[in-house]
Amino acid sequence: MEARDTLTFPQESRWNIDPYLPATVAPSSTTKKPIHVTLTFATSLDSSLSLSPGVQTVLSGPESKAMTHYLRSKHDAILVGVGTAIADNPSLNCRIEGVGGYGGENLTGQPRPVVLDPRGRWLLGDQTKILKLAKEGRGKAPFVVSSEPLGEENRKILESAGGKNIVLGDILDPTAPTTRLPWHTLLAALSKEGIQSLMIEGGGAVINDLLHPSHFSLVDTVIVTIAPIWLGKDGVQVCPEERVDEERNVKVPVAKLRETKWVPLGDDVVLCGRPIA
Amino acid sequence: MEARDTLTFPQESRWNIDPYLPATVAPSSTTKKPIHVTLTFATSLDSSLSLSPGVQTVLSGPESKAMTHYLRSKHDAILVGVGTAIADNPSLNCRIEGVGGYGGENLTGQPRPVVLDPRGRWLLGDQTKILKLAKEGRGKAPFVVSSEPLGEENRKILESAGGKNIVLGDILDPTAPTTRLPWHTLLAALSKEGIQSLMIEGGGAVINDLLHPSHFSLVDTVIVTIAPIWLGKDGVQVCPEERVDEERNVKVPVAKLRETKWVPLGDDVVLCGRPIA
Repeated sequence: MEARDTLTFPQESRWNIDPYLPATVAPSSTTKKPIHVTLTFATSLDSSLSLSPGVQTVLSGPESKAMTHYLRSKHDAILVGVGTAIADNPSLNCRIEGVGGYGGENLTGQPRPVVLDPRGRWLLGDQTKILKLAKEGRGKAPFVVSSEPLGEENRKILESAGGKNIVLGDILDPTAPTTRLPWHTLLAALSKEGIQSLMIEGGGAVINDLLHPSHFSLVDTVIVTIAPIWLGKDGVQVCPEERVDEERNVKVPVAKLRETKWVPLGDDVVLCGRPIA
Repeated sequence: MEARDTLTFPQESRWNIDPYLPATVAPSSTTKKPIHVTLTFATSLDSSLSLSPGVQTVLSGPESKAMTHYLRSKHDAILVGVGTAIADNPSLNCRIEGVGGYGGENLTGQPRPVVLDPRGRWLLGDQTKILKLAKEGRGKAPFVVSSEPLGEENRKILESAGGKNIVLGDILDPTAPTTRLPWHTLLAALSKEGIQSLMIEGGGAVINDLLHPSHFSLVDTVIVTIAPIWLGKDGVQVCPEERVDEERNVKVPVAKLRETKWVPLGDDVVLCGRPIA
């Protein structure tokens, strides 16, 4: 039986997006990363993810939402930062028609939720949606990535739902001028867990860090949805740290995309592209 | 003879944009404004117009540039704020094939440049591109809108090129919490000068002010070009002042568009829409 909140994403839209997804992307070089990384998020025209920190803002329409769930079905795992996990209490499962829990068997097509939580701030409990869905057989139990082992109670709740704490050791790079996450180490650790494709969904801190030149080449494809709305100042913005060309001492663009394709979808547009290294 | 920098904008692209342009737009209500106002600009994915204040940043590709000049040919006048006039020393003429100075006769199809300069900061001289082009017969001489009459020397230079100083009296609204330009008065003054369609191109202060709820309904259509690039922090951003629903004391979106159409154009996308009042 299908759940009532099952989503469908039409075939003609899939054709537009598929060339940017892991299953259909040929490795582009001989020095392969272990994992295909898709960076995806939805913003307003003024590049905000939400009106305020901790406030979930519905930006994109039903077509874009269905696309997000289609994308999730094409990845082994989906990752969010701890800020998003705490603020949104997200489901992080896949509700596209035909995956496990939504017409399909077992957990086929369900991605592994991964929460990046360096300092172990995410407190799990009865109200944690990811755990609920895992217990109902409508999503996989999460991996929580932290630098130190989680507190005992938190870890017990996580493991009793079938989840796992991945301890990376010193996860924050002390030599970086601002907080930079050790994406190389993280991807290697996830690869060791059998994850071959990762969709990174947010939030702002994670996205801005990945757009930084020292990390952007780890991303294989970028899929951005833009809604025709302005949220105004003091929203949670996708806007990476500025980049300066030291030789000429001038500001230069932080990141660019190649092989871009703009796909109108409902009231929104979806931009697909690949990072220019 | 056509000038070497003449631009062309293909017919198939025109069909996409034309429903949003003054000539083809039917008045939507009986209380008509005197002027059809088109708000148009180009941003990065992180909603910046340029890397830094005063730095001109090439964002959009040649197709989008040709579109801008096509748009200019469809309006009686184009307006920029004084910040843009000083920083960019813009041409503000139309170089699309067939207009006056670019294959056409006299100044047919050339829009009137209007510089909004409340405090008379724009200093005109031999290097002012708008005046040069006017003298060469490749553009109209500008109108400069100020609250007090321009200084004598400035005014002489302006008038000898065929331009005009429009004095609005107290152009800044002292009751507004932040600087708000009196768009109603301005549009009425331009209408009195025979201008029936106005394309507003920037810069950041002008755009953000027009997106404010107290002004956005003065805009008939919005045409935004987005380039697949992130400029990073401290750029000149299109990001209006936040809007608070006083009754519920919560932040709400500042502005939305209806009847939207997304038109891929080269590497960029063009969003056309109408304000939701």
